[in-house]
Parts: sequence; C-alpha cells; structure tokens
Amino acid sequence: MTDEYAIAGVPMRWVGPLRITGNVANTETEVPLATYESPLWPSVRRGARISMLAPDGIVATLVDERMTRSVLVEALDAATAHATARQVDARFAQLRDIVRANSRFADLVAIRHEITANLLFLRFEFTTGDASGHNMATLASDLLLTHILETLPGISYGSISANYCTDKKATAINGILGRGKNVITELVVPRDVVRDRLHTTAGRIAQLNVRKNLIGTLLAGGIRSANAHYANMLLGFYLATGQDAANIVEGSQGVTVAEDRDGDLYFSCTIPNLIVGTVGNGKGLPFVETNLTRLGCRAEREPGANARRLAVIAAATVLCGELSLLAAQTNPGELMRAHLHLERPVEKIGQET
Amino acid sequence: MTDEYAIAGVPMRWVGPLRITGNVANTETEVPLATYESPLWPSVRRGARISMLAPDGIVATLVDERMTRSVLVEALDAATAHATARQVDARFAQLRDIVRANSRFADLVAIRHEITANLLFLRFEFTTGDASGHNMATLASDLLLTHILETLPGISYGSISANYCTDKKATAINGILGRGKNVITELVVPRDVVRDRLHTTAGRIAQLNVRKNLIGTLLAGGIRSANAHYANMLLGFYLATGQDAANIVEGSQGVTVAEDRDGDLYFSCTIPNLIVGTVGNGKGLPFVETNLTRLGCRAEREPGANARRLAVIAAATVLCGELSLLAAQTNPGELMRAHLHLERPVEKIGQET
Amino acid sequence: MTDEYAIAGVPMRWVGPLRITGNVANTETEVPLATYESPLWPSVRRGARISMLAPDGIVATLVDERMTRSVLVEALDAATAHATARQVDARFAQLRDIVRANSRFADLVAIRHEITANLLFLRFEFTTGDASGHNMATLASDLLLTHILETLPGISYGSISANYCTDKKATAINGILGRGKNVITELVVPRDVVRDRLHTTAGRIAQLNVRKNLIGTLLAGGIRSANAHYANMLLGFYLATGQDAANIVEGSQGVTVAEDRDGDLYFSCTIPNLIVGTVGNGKGLPFVETNLTRLGCRAEREPGANARRLAVIAAATVLCGELSLLAAQTNPGELMRAHLHLERPVEKIGQET
Amino acid sequence: MTDEYAIAGVPMRWVGPLRITGNVANTETEVPLATYESPLWPSVRRGARISMLAPDGIVATLVDERMTRSVLVEALDAATAHATARQVDARFAQLRDIVRANSRFADLVAIRHEITANLLFLRFEFTTGDASGHNMATLASDLLLTHILETLPGISYGSISANYCTDKKATAINGILGRGKNVITELVVPRDVVRDRLHTTAGRIAQLNVRKNLIGTLLAGGIRSANAHYANMLLGFYLATGQDAANIVEGSQGVTVAEDRDGDLYFSCTIPNLIVGTVGNGKGLPFVETNLTRLGCRAEREPGANARRLAVIAAATVLCGELSLLAAQTNPGELMRAHLHLERPVEKIGQET
Repeated sequence: MTDEYAIAGVPMRWVGPLRITGNVANTETEVPLATYESPLWPSVRRGARISMLAPDGIVATLVDERMTRSVLVEALDAATAHATARQVDARFAQLRDIVRANSRFADLVAIRHEITANLLFLRFEFTTGDASGHNMATLASDLLLTHILETLPGISYGSISANYCTDKKATAINGILGRGKNVITELVVPRDVVRDRLHTTAGRIAQLNVRKNLIGTLLAGGIRSANAHYANMLLGFYLATGQDAANIVEGSQGVTVAEDRDGDLYFSCTIPNLIVGTVGNGKGLPFVETNLTRLGCRAEREPGANARRLAVIAAATVLCGELSLLAAQTNPGELMRAHLHLERPVEKIGQET
Repeated sequence: MTDEYAIAGVPMRWVGPLRITGNVANTETEVPLATYESPLWPSVRRGARISMLAPDGIVATLVDERMTRSVLVEALDAATAHATARQVDARFAQLRDIVRANSRFADLVAIRHEITANLLFLRFEFTTGDASGHNMATLASDLLLTHILETLPGISYGSISANYCTDKKATAINGILGRGKNVITELVVPRDVVRDRLHTTAGRIAQLNVRKNLIGTLLAGGIRSANAHYANMLLGFYLATGQDAANIVEGSQGVTVAEDRDGDLYFSCTIPNLIVGTVGNGKGLPFVETNLTRLGCRAEREPGANARRLAVIAAATVLCGELSLLAAQTNPGELMRAHLHLERPVEKIGQET
Repeated sequence: MTDEYAIAGVPMRWVGPLRITGNVANTETEVPLATYESPLWPSVRRGARISMLAPDGIVATLVDERMTRSVLVEALDAATAHATARQVDARFAQLRDIVRANSRFADLVAIRHEITANLLFLRFEFTTGDASGHNMATLASDLLLTHILETLPGISYGSISANYCTDKKATAINGILGRGKNVITELVVPRDVVRDRLHTTAGRIAQLNVRKNLIGTLLAGGIRSANAHYANMLLGFYLATGQDAANIVEGSQGVTVAEDRDGDLYFSCTIPNLIVGTVGNGKGLPFVETNLTRLGCRAEREPGANARRLAVIAAATVLCGELSLLAAQTNPGELMRAHLHLERPVEKIGQET
Repeated sequence: MTDEYAIAGVPMRWVGPLRITGNVANTETEVPLATYESPLWPSVRRGARISMLAPDGIVATLVDERMTRSVLVEALDAATAHATARQVDARFAQLRDIVRANSRFADLVAIRHEITANLLFLRFEFTTGDASGHNMATLASDLLLTHILETLPGISYGSISANYCTDKKATAINGILGRGKNVITELVVPRDVVRDRLHTTAGRIAQLNVRKNLIGTLLAGGIRSANAHYANMLLGFYLATGQDAANIVEGSQGVTVAEDRDGDLYFSCTIPNLIVGTVGNGKGLPFVETNLTRLGCRAEREPGANARRLAVIAAATVLCGELSLLAAQTNPGELMRAHLHLERPVEKIGQET
C-alpha cells in the first residue's frame, strides 16, 4: 500500500421525484444513483414518473430490522454443545445487558443457534440505531463470545464470524431469520398508465414475472432470488449514499410479485435484506453527507428513524427500476433498442445487462 | 432525472505489489481498490506481501471464459418446445455465423437449453473479446431469438432475458455451466511465514475454512459460496477498474480451499464467475483508463488477452484478502482489535464486516 | 445381520385407468401404488379419471435420459487438473470405447467437469438401456477412472463417487445437466370438468400454484422444487415397481405449471430426474414382475424402450396426484375433511402429508 | 382404483446389534431395514460392529423436535399482512389453547411468519407426542387458520399448506427452523479399528468427507446436504417401521463431519429432519408392530418418548451406513468389488447407488 490516496469517481445522477407512503415515510424525493451503467437512470426515472401518478405512490412497509453476526463455538461433543445452547438461551437477559452496557445503540434482540457435530453456531441479532451495524454487531459479538467462553465449561473459541450471519454471501438464512431492513413495496398502476407509459399490459407483466423471475431463477438453481435486477438499483443507491455496497449480494435476494387485477397492475418488490445506515463508514464524505441530507435522512429523529427512511427510499427506487425493466422485456426488441442507444443522450427504457 | 451530473467519489488506494504467475500472466503489480471500508486495504496488503515471499507467487489458472444470455421461448406445448430445442442444436453452425456476421468480437461457443411445461429456456454462451460482454451478448441473443422465431414453427416470444443466464442473482447455474472468467488461484505459504506474518498455523486455517466457509455456509442454506468475503475485494477492484460492480453477486459465489501440508499452508480460491472487461461501459473514464494502463491491461494483445490479465489480477487480489481475514479469525479478538482501530492510521489486519 | 429374512409388506393398490399419449407411449393403464398413506389412492384416482375425459389424456414428452456418476481426481495443482480435464475431453471417443467394450448396455454420452483448487470433478453420463443404471454407471466409471489414472500424469485417486453425480441428495446439477429420465406431462382440463370434478376453477389453481409451489418453496429456500407432493406418488410407484425409492430425493425436484386458459386449465408437471428401470435390483421379485408386465413394460422392445414407457407412466401418475391435491387446497377445509375420513372406506380427495 | 388390495413385499433383514447411548436411549439393539438394495445390509452391519467396540457406542443427542405446517393468508396489502402477523404473535397463548382444546397430543410451540407482497406465510410448529404428526399438524393448522380468518380483518384464505412447512421438498428452512427430530450422532473409532475394520485411516476419511460431502455437494448446487447416502438408510428404516418414507427427502439433508484426532476417527452425522412416529398411519400393520416392539418403542413411556427412542435408533443406523460407505470410497476399487458381488452371499462393504 503506497501513500497514494485517490478517488474512483463514479458518475452519479439524481432521478425522480418518486412518491412514497407507508409506515415509515410519506414523501416525494429524488434519489441519487452512482453507476457506470448509464441506462439505469432513465430506467428508474420511468418508474419514478409512474409512482407520481398514483395518489399513494409506492407504499413501502418496513416489517423488520436487525443486524446479525454468528460466532462459532467448538464444544467437547454434541451434548456439551446442546447444554451450551440451552445455557445461552437461559441467560438471554444477562447477555443483552452486556451489550447495552457497552454500546449506546446496539441492542440484542434475539439469539438463534444450530448445532452440527460438536460445533455450535450462535447467531446474535441486534438493532443498531442508524448504523447498518456490521461493526457494532462484531464488537458486541466479541464481548458476548468472550463472556460465554469464560463462563461456560467444555467449550472453546471457534471463530468470531462463522458464515451463519450471513455476510455478503448468498444464503437462505438471511431471508428466513432476517438481516438488515425487510421492506415491502407495492404500487398499483392503472390499466391506461400500463399501456401508455409502459407500452404493455398487466397480464403480460404478470406472466413474464412468473416465467422469468420465478420459474427461470428456479431452473437456474437460484436461492430466494425472484427478480430481474434489484442488484443494479441497490449498487447505484448504496454507492451514492456511502453504504458498503458489497451487501448487494444479499440485497439481490428478493421477490417481485405482479398481478393483473382487472387490467390494472399490482406490482410489488419484497427486499428482505436491505442493509443501509446513515452513520458509520463512508457517511462522513462530503458528497455523501449532502446526499443523505437531501434525502431527508439527516434530520433530528429517534435513533434508527433516519436509517429506516433511507431504507424505504432505497426499496422504492428498486421498484422503479424493476418495473421499468420487466415492462421493457415484455416487448420484443425494446431492450436491444435501449442498449443500442446507450451512448446517446436519449431516454432509454430498460436495463439489466 | 434532473440535468445534474455529479460524481460519487469512492476512496481508492493502490496496494501491493503482489506476485502472479500461471497460464495468463507472470507479473508483479500493485492493485487499486475503491471502497468505503478502509480496513480492506491493509487486509489485502498483508496477503500481497506474503505472495512476494513465494518464488511463484500466486499461481492463477484461468480455466474458462464465456458470457451468457438466456432467452425464453413459449411453445404450443412441450413436444413443440422439444422439437425446437433439437432444431436449435442442429443449426448451431448457422446460428454462430449469424453472430459472427454481426459482431467483430462476439462468438457463439455453446447453447444450453431446458424445458419446463411448454417453456423453452435457451442459454446462449459467447466469448466476447476484451469486453465483459453483457451488451454484446444481449445484442447477439436478440438476433438469434429473432431468427429462431422467424424460422421455426409453433413458438413465440417469451423474453429476451429469462434469468437462466443468470445475471446478478445468486444461482447454481453460473458455476456449473460457466459465466465470466473462471479463475483458480493457489498459494503455498511456508510454515514460518504462516507463523510470523499471519500469527497462526496452517492447521488452524484449514480447520476454520472447513467449519466456517464450508459447514457454516452450508447450514445457512448457501449456494456455492464457501468463502469469507470475496465480495469485498471484488467490489473494490471492480469500482477501481470501471466494471459493473453489481456482478459481485455471482462473483461472491466461490470456494476457498485450505490444507495443512506438513505445516505449510496450501491456500486456494476458485472464482468461477469473474466478470471483467477492459473495454465497454465505464472504461472511458480517465481514472479507469489510468488504472487499467497501470495494471498492464491496455497493451497491444490479441482480443481477450487484456481482459484475461485483468481477471487473474482480480482473482489474486481476492486471495490476498481472503487469506488475511481467515488468518485473523483464527485468533480470538484479532478482528475486533482491527475494527477498533478503524479510524486510525495503523495497519489493520482483517476485514469482513 | 442375523440370518432372518423377512418381508415388509407395504399395502398396494391399483388405481386408474389413466390415459397417456406422447412421444413414448399411447396407452390406457392402471397403475400400482404401494404406500402406508391410504389417501394417496383416491387422490391419484381422481386425477386419473380426469385424464380419461381428455381425448389425448396426459401428454407425456420424454426429453432426455442419462445416468451419471462423478469421480474425484486429485491433481498436483489446478494447472494439472486443467490439463487433465482437457485431455479427458480430447479422449472422449477412446473412453466411450472402453465403456462399450465392457458393457452391453452402458454407453458414455457426455463428460462434464469442474475444477476447484487442485480437485477435478469428472461427471460421466451414460445411457443404460432398461436399467436405472446406478451400478452400470459405477462399474463403467471405475473403468474410466482407472484408465485415466494410469495414462495421465500428475493425478491420483480421489473418490469413485464425489457427490457431483448427484445421487439421492438435493442439488441443482441434476436438473441442469440431467440425471434419469426427464419427462414433461401436460393435461388440459375443460372448464366444466374443473368445476364438477375438482370443485374449483382454473384461475384458482393457477394462482395457488404461483403462491404455494413457486413463491412458498422459494421463501423456504428450496432448490428446483416447485410442486406440492411429487415425492408421495413417486414413492408409491417406485416401491410397487421394484425401484430404488431413495431416488425420490431428486425425483421430488420438479416444477408444476398451471395456467388459466379462458377458463380451461393447462396443467403440467416437469420431472427432470425420474430414475426407473425394468431390469436390475428388485425387478426379480414376483410381484414386481407381475406389476411390470401388467404395465406393459416387459414387452419385446429395443433396449431402453421398456424403461422409457415405465418413466412416462410414472410421470403421468405424478400429475394425477398433483392435480388432485392442488385442487383440494384451493378449497378451505377440503384437505382437513379428507384427513378426518382417513380411516374410513370413503373416497378421499387430497393428500400431502 | 379397483377393489384389489395387495402387498408390495420389500425384502427386510435385521442387522446389528449396534450400541447407542446419549440423552434419549442407552441400548443395544438390532435394526430392521427393508430395501431392494441388498448391499445396504452388510454396509450397515459393518458400522454396527464398530459401534459395539466403543464403550459408549454411538452417542446420539436429540436437540429438537417439532412438526410443522405452513398456511397461506392473502391480505389486502402488505401493511395488512404485517398487522395480521403482529396480531397472530400477540395471540400466541390463545392460539395454543385452541390447539390444546382440540387435541390430546398436539401442542403449539412456535409460530414463524414471512411476508412477501400481500401474502402472509404462517408456519405453525407443534410437538405431537409419539406421532410423526403430519395429520395432527394439518388438523390443528386448519383450526388455527379458520380462527384467524374469522377474527382478524382484511385477510382471506390462501392455502392450508403453503410449502413453507416444508413437506417432502428439499429446502433450507427445515434445517434452520426445525422440522422433525434433530439428532446428532457421534462415534470415536480408535486408530487400529479404522485400520483393521475399515481398511483405511482417519485422515483419509476426513479428507474424503471434505472433498466429497462438503465440496462435491456444494459444487453440485446442493442445499444443506453434506453426506454420502443418508437417504438409503432412512428409506430402509422408514419402510421397516411403518413411516411415511417420502420424508427421506428432507431426511437426506444432513451433515457428516469427520476428523482425524491423532489417528483416531471422530465421526458424526447430524440429521436435523428425522420424521418418525410410533403411532399413526402404517403403525397398525402386524410386522410394523412387531418391529417397533422389538426396537423397544412400544413401551409404557411418557408421550413422545417412544418416538424419540425410535429417532435415535434411526440416526445411529444412518451413521453405521455412512461410515461404512465413506471408508469404502477411500480405497480405489472397493466399491466396485462390492457391487460385482452383489448377488452372492458374501459380505459387501459399501453402498451408495
């Protein structure tokens, strides 16, 4: 590592506004997206415009939030691992107090465990205020692990991180047990808007969603990943807001649902692993501060509220891009035409690349 | 989308040098990493230093390369889908000629198919020269799909992209059938280097790898993802070299192998889905051009050679960070100490967060 | 193991007839099902009756057949593994001749490989005549592995079976690369039959299929398993016809598609891993011989034709039970009522448990 | 369905005895296995003999038990689904009382939920006494679902079974959240026994386990399935004891761990989804009653104790066969020789096919 410090300048644009309602925010806001893939901007913009045509816009419901870290404990045998797990469960209140005593924001909300052979995997789950919480969870887990090792017999250190978390790898556990913000977005698009703005029908989008996102991913051996391109929108949004963008790995694991409701389109994106924060690494950079402020995520609010707001804005952005691309793919040739015009200053419609 | 253009400036540093040999490159080079997570730099740097102590350094073997796009064809019934698949197979040479006639660099190397009900999923596989190839594959697939629809009976357009590709979603198919560059890196670390530089033993790293990366991910319901944090290194490298970093989703699906060989450590990272290019979107940005040039990936070479060089450098970078973190996690408290020093200008050792 | 030989007598009934057409068989036949779960019989029977109402009955299309065995080769390093893989590919004709010289029925049709670190996984794929082919594939693979180890340098024995086959474990590879018979069944049920016999509508079955089989399994972290209960029918059929019923593990990995086509129901089951034979272990038992004969699978035909006939009958049986259960689950309380009557001699309709 | 009743007579033998200790049973017992694959018997027998050489035999630790059924509720929108989930959580005690009032043995122990779009998946988890519990869980879930639909607003019936259970399909959820008995078996085999009885070394078994069961399955896109052939032993045991053998699908999803401990072999099988009962369907057949009695699983015990005893015997049987096959596969040619002798009355050693 030389002494050079430099900057990778990723092109960034604001698109929108998009309209959001729901249990976290009622707002209209533009959103910043940093990407090398310029078709992302018009793709999200098209979805944003449609959100503005609906009185409630995109309804975003946050249903869970937690950050996790799993540790590995090696026991003498399975019976000792089992006894340890039961002891850990019994001492939950005490362990929670240890966390609280050492952190202003981290709070232990659950412990899950699984035993294989003589190996005990403990998954600690925390709320972490406005931080995405990776470091907070690691520090708290280190305390918990140290305490457990010191106070229970027959066990020894395995690892401070044991992939049962799971951080930045594609697994099923994050969706099933929760990791990050779990946000569901919904938008009902009237029949004429589907026709005039998306150049397709609700029935064709619903059918494509079943065949491509559900069956296509299933045949590919996918794991909880029924969508077209959540990763694209998340990457752009994460980079623009100072997030650790490697978390798009689990972010990509979400489910798009589309239904033809008498010609209107019900369109929904469920994103169980949105990992965002408004404080922490990357947040001190001037452009990040500016962006977070403009998004209304630097306001005086109770701890966690700014991060939840950021999460639902991220989720709504995902819906905009997902809707736009799926609509484009119902029409032969539309995606290709968008790509051919990639370098020209015209509106492009879909983007997956 | 307003008229504003801006830049998300991601902090970037060069670390290294690291030494690489193998069937693509024999070189010593520093590597650029752009990230908001500063512990990534010292983590990779520690691995790079170890690579310089081995005469052959990191041996990187590229075993495959291809870019893919799947299309969906709707048939009258399964029998028609089956007949179509057979016809497509029979016409492979003709389809390849169509691609060649329309692209200087894209070459059709294989077609795979799978039928479910009356739905035919065709997966076109191309080599794409020095481009990562997303757009090239989409354009070629559009031509192929149009030709197939026009010349075979009983079928109609389903989708230009059908998730059987699979782009930016976690699936098994990319590892099994190939997508991107498949690169295997290997490094043998002598016993005393393991002790002095990594503060651990080969046996402990090997054991941790089995328990964390193999068993831990398996229990989490992971899919082809036995590693600690490939996504971190890939994100930093992709951003610094103008890649579409959303491809870290499939990039994260790789396998670390560690063996204790009489006290020496055999350490290997297999990364089947490295998706990188030296031309295309993002590559025209001045800092990207500078970086690619400094990496030796802008030289006059046969088409594809610069991208292959970039791929093995990316893969070797992954190994450096993976080795460093795994070593750190064998020691209680080491990861925590690194995180606590996060904001200070001292060397940090591991990073996963 | 004492000297006692005994019999586990599993209750068996014939249900049907069901009507089958397609590229393998045009027939009407009853089918035997051996099970401890008596509701299976009326469930399949209801589907069979519906098949008899359609002129073409259940259209069964066999699209692939092969039996596989993977072996593991340890190489000096990845480069040697890569060189070995290329040599194996280059010698395909020679390897095929070795198989042919040692077996009347086994024929090598493809070799697939994947390298991780210095480990080379070779997946040999055979046609095996009328046998399901496990043993034939193992013996042929042993010959091939021995030959490869004797003639290529730098490699050594790893394992005669390496889980990349994959035998009786749930994986994605069997569906993607093929293992066993791949059979697609389709049935169009007229609107009034859906109403009168299934007491539901095409729309409700299609919607339930998306929500339960596709989305429900996806959320559960399923792998290529979008169906309600293929395993039940396969178990009953396998036991009744002398198959190795442990292959229901991969048999359970199939996909149900249901569509509302103007009120008629398009219903399809794709079963990519049907592993059945008409010769081999279990086939010599008198009741098995009787059953196979009654199914028309002991006729004088070209090698493989009897097994293919058995496969499409098995697949059609699966469709009958799947259709019946899904229909039942569209109606609140219907499944419960069936279970409550479990011990009584009345017709029951659905069965999953 | 004709009026014919018949029997599929599956060959059955008792093998053993094997020795079991642990938190459920301390016993020596032979075990019955019904199968068409005769090499299974000597394979399990070899493992059983080794268990008798260890003072504690196979240590079997039962760490969890529950039977599950998921139902699907359709809500007006995600917000209503979220509100419903919270209400269901808040009413847990009341829902448990409903189950208790209607069943002598079923007890509601947990409810899990996941929301996607406007769809609420509720996973009810029960203990079910000595029954495997499929029907008991279905009946209780029907009551619960009816009550929830009648008392909460904005929701309607989706399905009585929603694949989030998951029954007889390969998923990750059963291992993560639990379904059936979760039993861990461990056996330490002294170095000389490994050499004399298994003709191999602890190191070679440990290495093969990593490469075949962990890496091989991972590459195949497996889901929580790191073993050689659990399905074989489970099928034979389930058929011999009147179980619904289709549950080998989830039974096959377990993890083998093998370690070289200074030349001795630590060998462990974790089987999280053992689904067995001593009452219910199939249990009234005379040979089943005889077998259960001989296994000591018809004794006067507290509800559930007989089923737990049966579970640990099943799990120990799995270990015997798994150990035997893995040992055989460390030796080139051994598996082939066993297969060649398949029809002759000699001892065979390994069996996977």
